[in-house]
Amino acid sequence: MPAGFLKHPFMSQRAVAECDDDAMVRAMLTVELALAEVQEASGAIPHGVSQQMREQLARADLDASEIAQGIASGGNAAIPFVKQGRALLTDDLKRYWHQGATSQDVVDSALMLLLKPRLAALDELLLRCRSAALALMEVHIDTPMVGRTLMQQALPMTFGVKVAHWAIGLEQARRRLFAVELPVQLGGAVGVHSGWDTLGLEWMDALAGRLGLAVPVLPWHTDRYPIHALGTALDAVAGAAEKIALDVSLLTQTEVGEVAEPTAPGMGESSSMPHKRNPVRSALIRGAARQVHGHTSVLLNAAAQPLERGLGEWHAEWAPLTESALLVEGALEQVAVLLEGLEVNPANMHRNLAAAGGGIMAEPVARLLAPTLGMEQAKAVSAEAAETSRREARPYSEVLAEHPDVKGAVNPDALREACDPALYLGSSAAQVMRTRKWLASSSAH
Amino acid sequence: MPAGFLKHPFMSQRAVAECDDDAMVRAMLTVELALAEVQEASGAIPHGVSQQMREQLARADLDASEIAQGIASGGNAAIPFVKQGRALLTDDLKRYWHQGATSQDVVDSALMLLLKPRLAALDELLLRCRSAALALMEVHIDTPMVGRTLMQQALPMTFGVKVAHWAIGLEQARRRLFAVELPVQLGGAVGVHSGWDTLGLEWMDALAGRLGLAVPVLPWHTDRYPIHALGTALDAVAGAAEKIALDVSLLTQTEVGEVAEPTAPGMGESSSMPHKRNPVRSALIRGAARQVHGHTSVLLNAAAQPLERGLGEWHAEWAPLTESALLVEGALEQVAVLLEGLEVNPANMHRNLAAAGGGIMAEPVARLLAPTLGMEQAKAVSAEAAETSRREARPYSEVLAEHPDVKGAVNPDALREACDPALYLGSSAAQVMRTRKWLASSSAH
Amino acid sequence: MPAGFLKHPFMSQRAVAECDDDAMVRAMLTVELALAEVQEASGAIPHGVSQQMREQLARADLDASEIAQGIASGGNAAIPFVKQGRALLTDDLKRYWHQGATSQDVVDSALMLLLKPRLAALDELLLRCRSAALALMEVHIDTPMVGRTLMQQALPMTFGVKVAHWAIGLEQARRRLFAVELPVQLGGAVGVHSGWDTLGLEWMDALAGRLGLAVPVLPWHTDRYPIHALGTALDAVAGAAEKIALDVSLLTQTEVGEVAEPTAPGMGESSSMPHKRNPVRSALIRGAARQVHGHTSVLLNAAAQPLERGLGEWHAEWAPLTESALLVEGALEQVAVLLEGLEVNPANMHRNLAAAGGGIMAEPVARLLAPTLGMEQAKAVSAEAAETSRREARPYSEVLAEHPDVKGAVNPDALREACDPALYLGSSAAQVMRTRKWLASSSAH
Amino acid sequence: MPAGFLKHPFMSQRAVAECDDDAMVRAMLTVELALAEVQEASGAIPHGVSQQMREQLARADLDASEIAQGIASGGNAAIPFVKQGRALLTDDLKRYWHQGATSQDVVDSALMLLLKPRLAALDELLLRCRSAALALMEVHIDTPMVGRTLMQQALPMTFGVKVAHWAIGLEQARRRLFAVELPVQLGGAVGVHSGWDTLGLEWMDALAGRLGLAVPVLPWHTDRYPIHALGTALDAVAGAAEKIALDVSLLTQTEVGEVAEPTAPGMGESSSMPHKRNPVRSALIRGAARQVHGHTSVLLNAAAQPLERGLGEWHAEWAPLTESALLVEGALEQVAVLLEGLEVNPANMHRNLAAAGGGIMAEPVARLLAPTLGMEQAKAVSAEAAETSRREARPYSEVLAEHPDVKGAVNPDALREACDPALYLGSSAAQVMRTRKWLASSSAH
Repeated sequence: MPAGFLKHPFMSQRAVAECDDDAMVRAMLTVELALAEVQEASGAIPHGVSQQMREQLARADLDASEIAQGIASGGNAAIPFVKQGRALLTDDLKRYWHQGATSQDVVDSALMLLLKPRLAALDELLLRCRSAALALMEVHIDTPMVGRTLMQQALPMTFGVKVAHWAIGLEQARRRLFAVELPVQLGGAVGVHSGWDTLGLEWMDALAGRLGLAVPVLPWHTDRYPIHALGTALDAVAGAAEKIALDVSLLTQTEVGEVAEPTAPGMGESSSMPHKRNPVRSALIRGAARQVHGHTSVLLNAAAQPLERGLGEWHAEWAPLTESALLVEGALEQVAVLLEGLEVNPANMHRNLAAAGGGIMAEPVARLLAPTLGMEQAKAVSAEAAETSRREARPYSEVLAEHPDVKGAVNPDALREACDPALYLGSSAAQVMRTRKWLASSSAH
Repeated sequence: MPAGFLKHPFMSQRAVAECDDDAMVRAMLTVELALAEVQEASGAIPHGVSQQMREQLARADLDASEIAQGIASGGNAAIPFVKQGRALLTDDLKRYWHQGATSQDVVDSALMLLLKPRLAALDELLLRCRSAALALMEVHIDTPMVGRTLMQQALPMTFGVKVAHWAIGLEQARRRLFAVELPVQLGGAVGVHSGWDTLGLEWMDALAGRLGLAVPVLPWHTDRYPIHALGTALDAVAGAAEKIALDVSLLTQTEVGEVAEPTAPGMGESSSMPHKRNPVRSALIRGAARQVHGHTSVLLNAAAQPLERGLGEWHAEWAPLTESALLVEGALEQVAVLLEGLEVNPANMHRNLAAAGGGIMAEPVARLLAPTLGMEQAKAVSAEAAETSRREARPYSEVLAEHPDVKGAVNPDALREACDPALYLGSSAAQVMRTRKWLASSSAH
Repeated sequence: MPAGFLKHPFMSQRAVAECDDDAMVRAMLTVELALAEVQEASGAIPHGVSQQMREQLARADLDASEIAQGIASGGNAAIPFVKQGRALLTDDLKRYWHQGATSQDVVDSALMLLLKPRLAALDELLLRCRSAALALMEVHIDTPMVGRTLMQQALPMTFGVKVAHWAIGLEQARRRLFAVELPVQLGGAVGVHSGWDTLGLEWMDALAGRLGLAVPVLPWHTDRYPIHALGTALDAVAGAAEKIALDVSLLTQTEVGEVAEPTAPGMGESSSMPHKRNPVRSALIRGAARQVHGHTSVLLNAAAQPLERGLGEWHAEWAPLTESALLVEGALEQVAVLLEGLEVNPANMHRNLAAAGGGIMAEPVARLLAPTLGMEQAKAVSAEAAETSRREARPYSEVLAEHPDVKGAVNPDALREACDPALYLGSSAAQVMRTRKWLASSSAH
Repeated sequence: MPAGFLKHPFMSQRAVAECDDDAMVRAMLTVELALAEVQEASGAIPHGVSQQMREQLARADLDASEIAQGIASGGNAAIPFVKQGRALLTDDLKRYWHQGATSQDVVDSALMLLLKPRLAALDELLLRCRSAALALMEVHIDTPMVGRTLMQQALPMTFGVKVAHWAIGLEQARRRLFAVELPVQLGGAVGVHSGWDTLGLEWMDALAGRLGLAVPVLPWHTDRYPIHALGTALDAVAGAAEKIALDVSLLTQTEVGEVAEPTAPGMGESSSMPHKRNPVRSALIRGAARQVHGHTSVLLNAAAQPLERGLGEWHAEWAPLTESALLVEGALEQVAVLLEGLEVNPANMHRNLAAAGGGIMAEPVARLLAPTLGMEQAKAVSAEAAETSRREARPYSEVLAEHPDVKGAVNPDALREACDPALYLGSSAAQVMRTRKWLASSSAH
């Protein structure tokens, strides 16, 4: 795979660097050594064994590429890893190595260990996005812009309230992700700690503590709820990021021009068109999110796994889950930069509010006319004038004022006022304030 | 669509009957009338208006099929519904009808109202499944069976612990679903309560209370987190149900025969083969779950919606979300019957434990032999004997006892014991007890 | 399901009416009677039996709702249908009914029969769209508009060539769909015509001929290639329709205004905003296409079916496949209306070409300047001027002409010409002509 | 990403090695140089320029990692590649570099070049699988086994016919994949060869010829039909492979034991259970196929791309499409080994045919009894006896012979014969012969 060209650009580079085969070797080793420590503490392994293991394996070279090769016959990374690890130990220690564990215990727990710092990074990024969004929505609490439904101009609102909605989307996803547990896996071959009876559950609990992972109710070899919960929570973050990128893409269209991605040298330049500034960050976010949705669909379809171990279903989870985390982290890095440096253009927002000749004010106008003309007629008149205004490119208030049903029947000042978007922002400011409060309610998580 | 033949069989019939176009008309009416009441309470509508509306519309006939026809031009059900409703009201009331609301407010809120009893039904079904699973796992707390990984016999466990894992899967999904909020929608055209300023947010909160829906932070026209949370939570339930159906499908195979779906007249009969009993319930559950995953993937891909209203993205949610709920309810009805009436066949479980000549006991045997032969050699001997036992169809303990490395070197009683699956059940019983406790921890929700 | 509100609006109403439970009863009956005729022709059934069956069942009332109820225990529609059919026959005919067939034979073949007129309707709609697109692209073969990449203005093109690209997308999908075979299914219980030996294959071939379906290589109970081919071909049509709707959505934005959906009374009106004209057709197309993608993902994940009959995998195909056809038909009905009645606004296209101050001409300008300034410098100057033009809202040619590097160095006429979009349309017209030819190459299919 | 552990195991190692970032640099270079040659041939570039470019760039070091870094600001690999390439050229050549092309031309064409040898490898593997399947089905043309529907024993068939069905599945997918075109991309910035008029289309056609790619009707920057066609064709192959792996998984279950994956040292060993032989190849195939389905769903959802260039939609295709090819190649390598070395166990097939006491013969028995007892009663008796036989574990023929309705009424030899699976194989052999013929019909493609 030309991963550096086709995949990594959507990911966090830090995450790509931190989360590789070597990191997984270390994670598997961490699991095995912690297991030995737990067993030693419970008396199932002689005193000192875990320390000896640690020392012998620290000196030795675990060879990731040899492990990778062994997967073809073993079926997962733990099998060749365990074999390699055992071979490196002195004979007296071999029997205590991987004791009571099965390969899925090692892989599942190691993946949770790999993902833990990723989730922390995601939380950090989401908090950074939250701060940036907070600042942005405060600055623009009174910046009028047109709201658009089905991508048509509808009624006025503020840019601040738009940002508030973005912030809520991200924060809801953050809270959900933050609540997801990364449980340890330890069940032995068929999930019942064969040969170790109740000790097994004790080890499982203790191992979780030692690794900083959550304690599951029971081993979850084929109860993939934790994967489903994590995968869909990551997908929710992707969706919140994608929403922002979609809005930025639309608002940054040449004809709209209400926002622009932050400029930077070389950023968004075209290979052939010197004048263009491509919204590259939005493209990368949207590209990442779509890939996450595909990965998530793999996880959904693999939630039901047969009997005591999946036959392909489990295997199918590895890459989609891990990549989703890395893609979401990449997307959030872009979102953070967007929110921190977004170029907002209130002048263009103002221009666009007037673009349809004020026709977006047809609703308040209809409401103004209703007592005089009746609702149906008021709507008809305001709509007809909007159409005329659009076709003839004349100001809406002017067209309205000359309408035979309106002329003389309605106070001209009231009519002008009803046509002023900046006086028709509804709960925009109140929503920003409510958002600020709600975000604060979870500041300390 | 031949829905009665191709789709409803996977759904709850009760839900299909309760959740139809007429129910949606009623739900939309409920939303509009509650809105009028809220506005009346806040003084924005003259006293008595909401009651008059209720009476006039109660007498009138709202025509679902006319509304359905109007969707082609309106784009959603609320637009023709609002028009029809307004036409039925006397002129003095028309202007108070649908005041401050947009069609998405009505559709989103009505869908939440439609789904509310479905979620209650799901919770009820999940509690019923939980009770059935609890009973089943207690009965079989000591019933040995073989655990299977990658669909190969691995090591002994109990049927009780298998049911415990099923129960945990369902209960985890239940708790997640139970925590999902069904928020009211009320934001007006562009989500900022245009023309009503801060009153809008007050109405939104009051409307939630009146409808028994949750209060959102803000209107969520294009912040579809609530839909994502609900859709993926439903999908998690589908996955938990699917896991049980998959296990039942595998255990009910002719050659395995460890469980059978409950018998009932005509149930599972073949159109051509009189001897067959098809696991129809499992097929319907698995068929339902797969469709839910497809629906969920639509929701994931529609999470990012443009600006202040989706252009197809929102529309694409309606059927997948609603159908998912109905499919999951259908699946759970089947799961409940399965868990309550599952035919368990301990004799076949016993037979299968011996099927591979006891070869599944290779692990304990290896552990028994390890002190004498060393781990590597112990594993080799026990594996070799397993292979011999499988090929020659001779009892494992016998093949082992005659192995030159073993003969005389190991106590025959210990060897026989190491070959007895019923003595090698690990934490099976302890896991059942732990599950019982964990399930109880949330009995009252 | 509130199908009339949430699902049928995306579908062809004609298809919804033609393709219901009753139609499926008729299709199943057609299959069974044709099978009897085939068997009679081969001498396996006494002469006259098939005609007697036909008469007896024509007089009788097959009860779709009773069949629907029987699916809960039978697992598919054919089982209760066969039972009901048999009960209605006189005793002497009963044994010849459903002879040699299994329920999947009946359901699969009946679904193919149901889909056949739908595919014909799709082909007809696609040809209608093709004609409309042809006409539209000819009319606008020289209508300049701006091409947009990453939703930013890039360089000029024509509206004709855009339509040509749409037409190709639809036609490619049409050809693929047209090539998809709808095979008959006949294999008996396990797909090997048990009890009938080689006669079975002869019947299968003859049945295909009699039903107007394709002859499969072999029965395909668990070789779901035909479903995969059909489902993905439908999805390709959905994608082509969705592309058009996406472009229309973008071009119809208030600020862009280059096209508008055809007007019609009540079409696209908002429930609260009288001035709005929502692109409802585009929304319905995009909503339909997204649902099709979800359905297709179900089919992809169900392609591998176990042994000789699916256990849920097959069942999961029914609704997604059938609904996809109905959704695509609905989407194409909308596309046809769009292409036939699209309001094209060359004036706005002209306006938008000038919107960025002519900055879209930076590439030709850079090419003009390159011989004088060198490519890098030429690009820098043209980009700098584009940025200045955008910021100061001055004509690009003017800004350029005054640039110190350009002033005096370049012929002013050549500069003006390089800034004229209508002189920079590349292969637009040639592409339209090439498209016309390519479309014609398959006019008679 | 721990790609070596979590992703590459599912892929062809050869493909992973051949298809990396460096290969993509070479592919992009091939595209650019071929374009220069084409332009030189058409007179648009001075004679000798393309050769000079080739030489200068052959000497230079294109730096893949620097290109990779540039994607963050450029948005795709071509932008930094083109920049780097231009910097390496002498000044006189710079202006001819990437002339008339846009970055998407380079990336799309390069991806097609990368995929071309992969499709060739897939075709080769599919032909290898076809040969292996042909051989296997011939060997087992008369090997009886039980057919299973809904995973229940149904009626006899042969292993040969099962393999024939597998072969057809693979071959159908192969023919579809073989028919998919890999078109060149060349359209310039907005797809209309801006600045080059009709020359652009000539170059496009010539470039296709020079690169060995297909000629598209027109540039397809946002007509992604070719990607949809390719992605879904790859998915069809994945599905055909997955079907085989699913059947092998089921038939290789300990209790079934009818086939086993080929043995090899270390293959399928468990980390804790010495007796186990895991069907690792099947697990890897099924794991790969599931990931392909997820990738395909990304492609389906990205088929509609906005205006003249995707904003994330295009970007989202890169990895899923490329990975799908590599995953399918990996899966087919496993399928080839499976088909070439599958251990088939006719003895166990024979044993399983008798497992249900012959109850699978209830259908032929019913047909035998029908003339005497009437169809309904015949079915009832044969079913009742099957149930008795299953419960009492007595031979079906014996139970039947003693049934009061049967005793004396039916010829005992005919009864015994009707109970013999090997005499009830239907069209199994004929299907194998038909398959052989059909496969041969396309031997030369």
